[in-house]
Amino acid sequence: MTRSAPEIEQAIDAVRADVARLHAELVRYGLVVWTGGNVSGRVRLSDDGSGDLFVIKPSGVSYDDLAPENMILCDLDGAVVPGTAGSDRAPSSDTAAHAYVYRHMPEVGGVVHTHSTYAVAWAARGEEIPCVITAMADEFGGPIPVGPFAIIGDDSIGRGIVETLRGHRSRAVLMQNHGPFTIGVNAADAVKAAVMVEDVARTVHHAREAGPLIPLPQEAIDRLFDRYQNVYGQSADARR
Amino acid sequence: MTRSAPEIEQAIDAVRADVARLHAELVRYGLVVWTGGNVSGRVRLSDDGSGDLFVIKPSGVSYDDLAPENMILCDLDGAVVPGTAGSDRAPSSDTAAHAYVYRHMPEVGGVVHTHSTYAVAWAARGEEIPCVITAMADEFGGPIPVGPFAIIGDDSIGRGIVETLRGHRSRAVLMQNHGPFTIGVNAADAVKAAVMVEDVARTVHHAREAGPLIPLPQEAIDRLFDRYQNVYGQSADARR
Amino acid sequence: MTRSAPEIEQAIDAVRADVARLHAELVRYGLVVWTGGNVSGRVRLSDDGSGDLFVIKPSGVSYDDLAPENMILCDLDGAVVPGTAGSDRAPSSDTAAHAYVYRHMPEVGGVVHTHSTYAVAWAARGEEIPCVITAMADEFGGPIPVGPFAIIGDDSIGRGIVETLRGHRSRAVLMQNHGPFTIGVNAADAVKAAVMVEDVARTVHHAREAGPLIPLPQEAIDRLFDRYQNVYGQSADARR
Amino acid sequence: MTRSAPEIEQAIDAVRADVARLHAELVRYGLVVWTGGNVSGRVRLSDDGSGDLFVIKPSGVSYDDLAPENMILCDLDGAVVPGTAGSDRAPSSDTAAHAYVYRHMPEVGGVVHTHSTYAVAWAARGEEIPCVITAMADEFGGPIPVGPFAIIGDDSIGRGIVETLRGHRSRAVLMQNHGPFTIGVNAADAVKAAVMVEDVARTVHHAREAGPLIPLPQEAIDRLFDRYQNVYGQSADARR
Repeated sequence: MTRSAPEIEQAIDAVRADVARLHAELVRYGLVVWTGGNVSGRVRLSDDGSGDLFVIKPSGVSYDDLAPENMILCDLDGAVVPGTAGSDRAPSSDTAAHAYVYRHMPEVGGVVHTHSTYAVAWAARGEEIPCVITAMADEFGGPIPVGPFAIIGDDSIGRGIVETLRGHRSRAVLMQNHGPFTIGVNAADAVKAAVMVEDVARTVHHAREAGPLIPLPQEAIDRLFDRYQNVYGQSADARR
Repeated sequence: MTRSAPEIEQAIDAVRADVARLHAELVRYGLVVWTGGNVSGRVRLSDDGSGDLFVIKPSGVSYDDLAPENMILCDLDGAVVPGTAGSDRAPSSDTAAHAYVYRHMPEVGGVVHTHSTYAVAWAARGEEIPCVITAMADEFGGPIPVGPFAIIGDDSIGRGIVETLRGHRSRAVLMQNHGPFTIGVNAADAVKAAVMVEDVARTVHHAREAGPLIPLPQEAIDRLFDRYQNVYGQSADARR
Repeated sequence: MTRSAPEIEQAIDAVRADVARLHAELVRYGLVVWTGGNVSGRVRLSDDGSGDLFVIKPSGVSYDDLAPENMILCDLDGAVVPGTAGSDRAPSSDTAAHAYVYRHMPEVGGVVHTHSTYAVAWAARGEEIPCVITAMADEFGGPIPVGPFAIIGDDSIGRGIVETLRGHRSRAVLMQNHGPFTIGVNAADAVKAAVMVEDVARTVHHAREAGPLIPLPQEAIDRLFDRYQNVYGQSADARR
Repeated sequence: MTRSAPEIEQAIDAVRADVARLHAELVRYGLVVWTGGNVSGRVRLSDDGSGDLFVIKPSGVSYDDLAPENMILCDLDGAVVPGTAGSDRAPSSDTAAHAYVYRHMPEVGGVVHTHSTYAVAWAARGEEIPCVITAMADEFGGPIPVGPFAIIGDDSIGRGIVETLRGHRSRAVLMQNHGPFTIGVNAADAVKAAVMVEDVARTVHHAREAGPLIPLPQEAIDRLFDRYQNVYGQSADARR
């Protein structure tokens, strides 16, 4: 993949627009409060992904003030690309975790992190969400796994995400005592996963409060997951 | 019933407009997230219903983008009517279930499916919602029943809906491990049932969390249901 | 009190405007779904209240379509005043209950009924809401009482409201298996009570789920209630 | 610190604008109903804080009607400054508590009080919120403490807030049977704390309903709190 400078510019602008716009979905679905939460999107520039960039939200800025031009462009080590729009600001404090995921999972095109209520509630108990509803089988293909306890400051959050999700059907992980991180083929797909993980976290929470849940047969989960990944939507990747 | 071509066109357009508009009610009442959920409405063209059509939402399309012209017209086998507006898109992945209901229940003019939180919570336990509040007696005339576990891919969901709701007072069924399907005399009536089933699912859930519920006497349920079906609203079918 | 015809007209118009506008508060605070719930306001025309009228919502009409001119004017027997704006429509199916309250409690200037979630949850258990938070002492001066089970069709709902609230500090009653009715010095005051009863019903519900509640001393409840009725707001009746 | 009259005017106007605008955040995050809740902000005029003023909401006025010019300017004894904009109205009934905090904690630049649902639920049990999620360690550096039972009418609420929060990492206190008060370096910071305390109150409530919580190691709490106070956001005080 060789891209001309204008093509690169255009690719960056497209991801900036997507990432800025998609933050509004976190607000719409009540997944974030104040300046919490963040969305990033990969800018694909290289064949093996190693030369890619990503766009992420600035740190501690109101959701009302997010716009494509104040999104921040980073390299895969999480360093801000100097001289680009927004580069005078600090990127999200979760930038290192996003960068780690992009470095180690070249297929990932978007990462989202929130502290959405019910997903964090499962995370505070270190308990995976059992797959007992068909929408969850469709979307995640099984339970939502829990990742290790890790705190900000080094690569441990990123590593925990990658080790949990690599090879897993689920695009969401509940980092223990912390909250959900989701991945996707692009930023929109990761945001969808963030919306859905809170939706199933809330539904299964309430379901279980009131009595025993009926398990879904594994064979049904497999069929639902397979169909949804391949048939749902307007084309093979329409859900994305 | 013989209708001229312009009359048929007009009838289709009216249902398209209704179905597009009614999806916004699912959003307003928080019954759906992302592209989940679907509303359909029957276009009455034949005396016994067998020659009717129905209009349904496209698959995997954002609620912000729904408009009359991208709703999809299907026959009662669930096949898209070629050459009509929106026919270049795939219809909702639940189209087969809607079609089955229209084929087997000619009195049904609207079908709605959501994954609304509390209704799904009861469905995940396979537990019917007991009729303990007067609003529920009014609207559903008794408990909300549970339908069989069935997964997408054949007629089993549609059959489960029809077998559960045929002859039942309730216009809502909780398909086990899946979620609510509602029916009505038209799309608006089915949407109202979807709104009300979530409302009672949530209320009775919270009521029961905190202690024993007082049963409603059957005689009171019968009187309330009868009155509501015949008196409430601006005329006999105003609620619809 | 003798009023000229234009004065009467003006008084009616003012209540129509209030009642139409206040329905939007039920929507804003999530107390109603679809066409459920109703607000009414007394039009004071007589010294002892017996010759008054009241304005109420039409039955089964969308909240989006409520306007002063389609509110319905009734006499204190609940009969629509013929020839007045909106008189071609049926009034709320709860009109008889509102009328009974106005007939028997001349000091009441507004009545509200909703099926708000948590208030109905307490009503479904026939359990009064204990007064354990200062906001509840302020507003209601003690627990929210439960009224008898009564169904629509005669005076039993109205009688149950009056017998429960007459002489009680609370402006709200939870009618068993049904839901809250609130009263006030005018429609706005009754709407405020409807908003507050759901707020305290929800808060005390969640509080008690998680462990034992600390009772409020009766003496503190008395002092809080007294202060709030006499000091809070911009003047003695500003809260109204 | 000596300020000219125009500088003082400008400082007051800036706080009026902030305080009026920030009330909308209480509504946005669902922390208040009707006219409940209040935000105030200190106007810094003196070196040791003793000659400062503060701006607070009027009592019992709708959130729709709040504007800079009807905010009320008070001295640190809670007395309205005569002849200033809004001084014809009564200030919030919690003004004495705000004044007490400003008098005794010169570093505090903003105070907020709400009756937000889950924070009040913990307060009704007199139970502190344990620090089990990283967002809470970031923001509050440990558990959210409970303050004494105190009712309006003297200095006991203000004293309870100050005695609980002085020297405490938390900017939020749950006053028993009453609700949360939060403080901050300015009004925006106190509002952020009010938003976050409800967020963690709700999340930890739901988490604990469903099973045992995993404690956060004290050392992790300390590191998270330290980092967040010093690194997060666009500069050392960006979160404010």
